[in-house]
Amino acid sequence: MEITLNAPLDMHLHLRDGDMLKLVAPLSSDFAGAVIMPNLVPPATTPAAMSAYSERIASAMGEESFTRYMTLFFTPQSEQQLTQAKATPGFFGYKLYPAGITTNSEGGVANLTEADSTLRMMQEMDIPLLVHGESHGFVMDRETEFLAVYRELAERYPKLRICMEHITTAAALQLLDEFDNLCATVTLQHLIITLDDVAGGALQPHLFCKPIAKRPGDRDALLQAALNAHPRLMFGSDSAPHPRCKKEACGCAAGVFTAPLALPRLAELFARHGALDKLQAFISDNACKLYGLTPVQKQITLHDVPMQVPASYRSYGQQVIPMYAGEQLSWSVKR
Amino acid sequence: MEITLNAPLDMHLHLRDGDMLKLVAPLSSDFAGAVIMPNLVPPATTPAAMSAYSERIASAMGEESFTRYMTLFFTPQSEQQLTQAKATPGFFGYKLYPAGITTNSEGGVANLTEADSTLRMMQEMDIPLLVHGESHGFVMDRETEFLAVYRELAERYPKLRICMEHITTAAALQLLDEFDNLCATVTLQHLIITLDDVAGGALQPHLFCKPIAKRPGDRDALLQAALNAHPRLMFGSDSAPHPRCKKEACGCAAGVFTAPLALPRLAELFARHGALDKLQAFISDNACKLYGLTPVQKQITLHDVPMQVPASYRSYGQQVIPMYAGEQLSWSVKR
Repeated sequence: MEITLNAPLDMHLHLRDGDMLKLVAPLSSDFAGAVIMPNLVPPATTPAAMSAYSERIASAMGEESFTRYMTLFFTPQSEQQLTQAKATPGFFGYKLYPAGITTNSEGGVANLTEADSTLRMMQEMDIPLLVHGESHGFVMDRETEFLAVYRELAERYPKLRICMEHITTAAALQLLDEFDNLCATVTLQHLIITLDDVAGGALQPHLFCKPIAKRPGDRDALLQAALNAHPRLMFGSDSAPHPRCKKEACGCAAGVFTAPLALPRLAELFARHGALDKLQAFISDNACKLYGLTPVQKQITLHDVPMQVPASYRSYGQQVIPMYAGEQLSWSVKR
Repeated sequence: MEITLNAPLDMHLHLRDGDMLKLVAPLSSDFAGAVIMPNLVPPATTPAAMSAYSERIASAMGEESFTRYMTLFFTPQSEQQLTQAKATPGFFGYKLYPAGITTNSEGGVANLTEADSTLRMMQEMDIPLLVHGESHGFVMDRETEFLAVYRELAERYPKLRICMEHITTAAALQLLDEFDNLCATVTLQHLIITLDDVAGGALQPHLFCKPIAKRPGDRDALLQAALNAHPRLMFGSDSAPHPRCKKEACGCAAGVFTAPLALPRLAELFARHGALDKLQAFISDNACKLYGLTPVQKQITLHDVPMQVPASYRSYGQQVIPMYAGEQLSWSVKR
């Protein structure tokens, strides 16, 4: 059994910088492109910083046919700033992190008000808003608590393209169905794991991410939406590498590294559920339609030949442990 | 400010064996005694194994005035076995782990039926049943799912002393209020932390335990019950040391090590809430009344003089990281 995918896209990817970028960027090269997150230290907040980062990615990728959809870290912007960003090659949208936008609804509204003129201009200029949608509440409730903010954004800016990034709950899917101007990404791990996989047996730091994996009912709802190729749901790995020493430690950093195995594992997952015909929509077509993308021509064939996932990826003095480290997947990329 | 406690008891303690036992046993010596868990490898299932373990503890403790309330790992027993256990010096009760008793209610009932004759005899002979009450369900639901089993035990064996060990939910407290033949222990950490402290920021393996810390409302209810000296709620640290290398690793073992700081931290906690006068009941009197214990005479005075918690405890080739490693508590034991 095999499937050939046209221009697979990773609509939410962390590539880091420096030596880590050099290690992980080539491991995403089976994709035709990816939406690159701006949360470097310091975050990419200017078109100049964004463009320089894009060049470093291109250099690390060593692959011509990989489209970098670059994002800027959201802060209130002037019209001139937005115009300049939009005119910058590779610019895709703004990524809003909840640090300043919520905790409770009052705080959320106040801060949304502060961002109001920026969001109105983004709506007019058709600049997407990508949102990390979590409140500062109890870890299992953060996404559902944030849904009120999504609702307010969707109602107040009916033509703004708002992407709920890395959704993890059935409740977020329900909201997705309420508003045409909402879309969403979902990771590989949130289609597969629950909090049980992170903390139900021994604690698994390499499956610890934000938003944290939720309940079986949430996982099941997300998986069904993906398998049914929900037209406003896109694959975004949120692949987030950390050095091994920061994962297997007291105070483990959040993030699951899935980039090198996401396509084989997705093919395996969709095949097992008899939904292989829906993978093209989930992995590329939905995103192209929603955002009007025209990625580079790139085809990748996956087949049901096993893939041995390395115990770790090492290079440039960096070591990263992937999901399924040392395990065998039943699908692989046909080279 | 200071408080002198009479015969503080730790009603749920893991002391391990071998070198780890030698390291951790003396760190519980401020207590007058403790209920010692039998889950060694292999578990203590016979009076002979239990007595030998008790002797090893006495040797490691190097402290005359520490009462070892020994438990046996529950399996169905004959009358002769129960009689023999009850006649063994230091024997306290049976500890039932849910491995064979639940997952769903049918399984639970079937297995309870299998244990029925043992439980009836324990009831007649006044042998306490200590229960690790978790189902095999979703990690956040395991205790609440198990409450149906507790209810059935409490109804079917109205004179059996049943202890719900290390409760973590408001729902368990509600059940406690329904049945006079139920009592419960609660740990230090479950009075203080929630899942947020384990996985809400960076992942904290040293706060990872089973049952896992729950929601703020659960923590608040447990704390209020302790501060109000609920007459059927006792302190049981569930202090559970693991070698550092097994905690800060992929596949971190469950357990929080609190024995050396439990008394100062409890005094600090009760003092902060103006409930210092309730600590004697929580730390000893409730247990003495519920089980008819007469522990050794031992007084320990705690005062509001800071205690520096070590970054780790090391000895005999073992290293264990305590809760609050490297931090300062505002109360300490007065030596």
